[in-house]
Amino acid sequence: MYIHQNTPPAATPIEGLEHVTLAGSFNGSRQLSVWQQILQPGSATPVHEHDCEELVMCSQGYGELHIDDEVFAFGPNSTITLPANQLHQLINVGDQPMHIVAVFPMTPVATYLPQREVLELPWAT
Amino acid sequence: MYIHQNTPPAATPIEGLEHVTLAGSFNGSRQLSVWQQILQPGSATPVHEHDCEELVMCSQGYGELHIDDEVFAFGPNSTITLPANQLHQLINVGDQPMHIVAVFPMTPVATYLPQREVLELPWAT
Repeated sequence: MYIHQNTPPAATPIEGLEHVTLAGSFNGSRQLSVWQQILQPGSATPVHEHDCEELVMCSQGYGELHIDDEVFAFGPNSTITLPANQLHQLINVGDQPMHIVAVFPMTPVATYLPQREVLELPWAT
Repeated sequence: MYIHQNTPPAATPIEGLEHVTLAGSFNGSRQLSVWQQILQPGSATPVHEHDCEELVMCSQGYGELHIDDEVFAFGPNSTITLPANQLHQLINVGDQPMHIVAVFPMTPVATYLPQREVLELPWAT
């Protein structure tokens, strides 16, 4: 199975976050995970980290990246490079939905809250 | 530098192929490369392979994936999973430009023609 038809992001139990896993171990990937997400205005990811680098491509919307006490603004057509084991949070600070694709060099990929508490995600990783 | 503003794909010496490297070792990534490309109708990539898995997300256009003697059709909103060291070729068989994003779990990432001949690419990998 080389070709996978994408389904659109769907509502999740996380407030304001729609998600679809485009690629991962569940559909044949061995080294990569790809998540497509829509974050509603005012919504945010939890503060979290992964054990690998993460790249986030933003195609629509305006957001803030919070890392420790620093804030970095981003908008459409930007790419965010997040080092492994770097706690971070993304917030939609605009008035339109934010469309992002996140890529990881492993699958499955675990997600941790501060103090390394495992965050069980409601999707295939 | 966590945030990178993307530039649009630009013409390359490869006929019918526009390219921009959104992320790689050149701009701070350590584990991932992301390439954004536009392939014109009738144009094709060389038959090639990499030493790692590759995922290709197609957002616009209609193409064929050629692997050995097999042909797999794909269109908009599809994801292609290519195993490491799998020779493959992508061809735009539609009448509109094909828009794709390719992701690799390494950076830089080498590209090989058949018989493991190194293909020197005209962009940062």
